[in-house]
Amino acid sequence: MKPIAKGSIPVSDARRFLEPGPIVLVSSAYKGETNIMTCGWHMMLDYARIGCYIWDANHSHGLIRKSGECVINLPTVEIAPKVVRIGNCSGRETDKFAAFKLTKEKGERVAAPLIAECYANFECRLADAKLIDAYGLFVFEVVAARAATRPKFPKTIHYRGGGEFMISGSETRKWRKLFRPDML
Amino acid sequence: MKPIAKGSIPVSDARRFLEPGPIVLVSSAYKGETNIMTCGWHMMLDYARIGCYIWDANHSHGLIRKSGECVINLPTVEIAPKVVRIGNCSGRETDKFAAFKLTKEKGERVAAPLIAECYANFECRLADAKLIDAYGLFVFEVVAARAATRPKFPKTIHYRGGGEFMISGSETRKWRKLFRPDML
Repeated sequence: MKPIAKGSIPVSDARRFLEPGPIVLVSSAYKGETNIMTCGWHMMLDYARIGCYIWDANHSHGLIRKSGECVINLPTVEIAPKVVRIGNCSGRETDKFAAFKLTKEKGERVAAPLIAECYANFECRLADAKLIDAYGLFVFEVVAARAATRPKFPKTIHYRGGGEFMISGSETRKWRKLFRPDML
Repeated sequence: MKPIAKGSIPVSDARRFLEPGPIVLVSSAYKGETNIMTCGWHMMLDYARIGCYIWDANHSHGLIRKSGECVINLPTVEIAPKVVRIGNCSGRETDKFAAFKLTKEKGERVAAPLIAECYANFECRLADAKLIDAYGLFVFEVVAARAATRPKFPKTIHYRGGGEFMISGSETRKWRKLFRPDML
């Protein structure tokens, strides 16, 4: 798997990729250490804010909390087994960028590395840390966004639990005519 | 579209249906009035809690806040145009159960009606209202859950913005062998 060529997109376009509910890879850096975690528990909180559940047992929890930053990367089915393996080992013992042969790309706005082999990258700043202790919920603001344009609909990975995944993206439909103009 | 036969499932199985990120229909009731809203902004917060963004301009916002209850229903592609239309009109002017010919089913634990034509129904109690004002975020506890068993993988609807949807469920993969046993 080679790095994927991407260009800048508006931060408000993050929802086009994240609202459908894919598994994402969250990359982080703190004091020279980097890490990657696999995450399926996230949601849009407005068009530039994302809520993301990060368990305090995850090694990434501390790196992201202390640096106040991360990158949310969108992996596609081509690297799905790698994505699963990343979620089944810990950054405490493993340098995941090295172990999984993923390429660090420099971000525009955050020090955490982007994953070049992903279809899209969303650079995030921790906007609110107050929900972390009660809910494990990190509220991120998207401060820069990049995405590929081909294929138009990347095949993303969606987790059903129990080791079972749905692969989405091969079937799309438009129902624009059913929308009120102000809802588009 | 006929009502779909369903049976009880453990509340912790809600994640099998919601974690993949489908559009859901949220049904509610308060003082004799019922409503339905279309929602794509939700996430698991633990295995029996769901975070759900409900804008205060939505008519359902008040019904759910005041009753402290709702049902999260999982629609499938068969009723997708109806799901889109439900999201593009308001319960202030429309009795959505009547207008969209959907069947109310009685819940086990909440007074809000289940939608019979959906593949799964998750009865929810509002567990925490403290994040509503700042984030529009309702924290629900799933108190009862029902799902169909056929088809095994229902085709669900995932929103990409701009009137464009991905339809998921026709392609599934198992990668159980890549999991640590304690992660399954």
